[in-house]
Amino acid sequence: MGASLSLAIRQKNLPFGRIDGVVRSVSSRDEGLKLKVADSIFLESEFKEKDLWNDYGLIIYSLPVNLTCEKIAELPLSYRGIVTDLGSTKREIIEAVEKKYSSSHRYYSSHPMAGSEHSGLKYAQADLYEARLCILTPPKRVEEGVEDFIRDFWEKIGMYTLKIEAEEHDKALAYISHSPHILSSIMTNWCWENPTVSEKTGLSPIPLTGGGFRDMSRIAGSNPEMWDAIIETNREPIRQSLIDFRDRLNVLIGVLGSNSEVSGFWKKFFDKAKKSRDRILKLE
Amino acid sequence: MGASLSLAIRQKNLPFGRIDGVVRSVSSRDEGLKLKVADSIFLESEFKEKDLWNDYGLIIYSLPVNLTCEKIAELPLSYRGIVTDLGSTKREIIEAVEKKYSSSHRYYSSHPMAGSEHSGLKYAQADLYEARLCILTPPKRVEEGVEDFIRDFWEKIGMYTLKIEAEEHDKALAYISHSPHILSSIMTNWCWENPTVSEKTGLSPIPLTGGGFRDMSRIAGSNPEMWDAIIETNREPIRQSLIDFRDRLNVLIGVLGSNSEVSGFWKKFFDKAKKSRDRILKLE
Repeated sequence: MGASLSLAIRQKNLPFGRIDGVVRSVSSRDEGLKLKVADSIFLESEFKEKDLWNDYGLIIYSLPVNLTCEKIAELPLSYRGIVTDLGSTKREIIEAVEKKYSSSHRYYSSHPMAGSEHSGLKYAQADLYEARLCILTPPKRVEEGVEDFIRDFWEKIGMYTLKIEAEEHDKALAYISHSPHILSSIMTNWCWENPTVSEKTGLSPIPLTGGGFRDMSRIAGSNPEMWDAIIETNREPIRQSLIDFRDRLNVLIGVLGSNSEVSGFWKKFFDKAKKSRDRILKLE
Repeated sequence: MGASLSLAIRQKNLPFGRIDGVVRSVSSRDEGLKLKVADSIFLESEFKEKDLWNDYGLIIYSLPVNLTCEKIAELPLSYRGIVTDLGSTKREIIEAVEKKYSSSHRYYSSHPMAGSEHSGLKYAQADLYEARLCILTPPKRVEEGVEDFIRDFWEKIGMYTLKIEAEEHDKALAYISHSPHILSSIMTNWCWENPTVSEKTGLSPIPLTGGGFRDMSRIAGSNPEMWDAIIETNREPIRQSLIDFRDRLNVLIGVLGSNSEVSGFWKKFFDKAKKSRDRILKLE
């Protein structure tokens, strides 16, 4: 995410003197230098030791949410620039920011909703953010003008923006992203562990599944470390949404178990599902 | 499905004198003639009135499962050719065949696992079946040689084949296709009916969702009439598989609700999901 953003900033000719990266390991630094994803790349230890913060007008954290919160705690109060992050959940980040700053500050959180199945520097792509949505989430006591700067930044990168408060962000994301990721992952384990499926898959020259299963399971298992942090930092909204899902599943299990044929029930159910999908994807 | 198969038979130069279609409505007949998907196209009433069965060596039903069962009941016992179908569930079809024929017969069921989101003659495509899997399901008392004929037919169309008995077919398909279709459809309704999601979607210039949700919901709501028939003819295996899914969901809801942080639980869960997916898709 960070390397793609660096490439995007260059491609869009944003008026930044230089774009430097800070990484955690020597191997990331070497790979980043080889791939030329930034002007300079520092090890985190080096950056801190040299106290380089105030050489930069904008700092962007591209890290799992739990680490983002750690970095917020470590930010020197003397830093005068603007700070944002790319975190996928917002409540913990906003809490960390509000806890850190008891008076006016220049931290404004972002969630650019872009990404690929792949992680790692070698998959960096300048157009990753193009025409996607970036959610903007304000902490309390943020200085005037910072919101405009951050919105303008993402729009110059090529993104649409929408402001959503932390709590609502996390509730909505549980439904549109986090719980679907869990459901998709349950599905692959559930399917594979069925003895008939695994036996027949073994006997078959090609997978038993058609395109539907492949599509539904595409996100299952991508980037487990990042997803672990997402789930751990949004547990209660995810739990509530999965209970809602289970309630709906129970209704259908009941219909399947009833003795009477429910004429046209499934047709109506699938018709409605299609309408819901079209509305979510703004196709109607 | 039927029109695509007709185009595939021609493209593969199978040694059939002619390929005729039988349809239910005048509008389908007119569209089929215009699109030249068969040499002749009959209305069903016309075909029956003229008693044309024995003009053909192979009859293929391309119909929802419930209608396939009706057609099997109507088949004249005097028909001497081979019969198959493209039904997505097998128990009811095999029962209908075994009920009809108390002695040796030439009906052998097929499930070519190919299809698109679109239904209708205008979406017919000759390569729909290419390199996909066709499941072959024998009824009792089928004449020797018929299985070889049917296997050979699908392989010449370009498909891989695998023989699976009716009961096992329906159990496996509940897991790899039918229940995923239901789960995907629950997901779109569940997501859209969350008030935060619908409100923020209304305010957003583009959909809130990234590619993950789009992929997972792609099959939701496609061809509701066909899917209604699939679910109604495979209720118990689907019900059992959804109970299995619910049990797994309950475990995760429990983990999310427990007070203790379960370090690395989700990483392990997602790692396993990826392994399961790779096994289902025969990627490892």
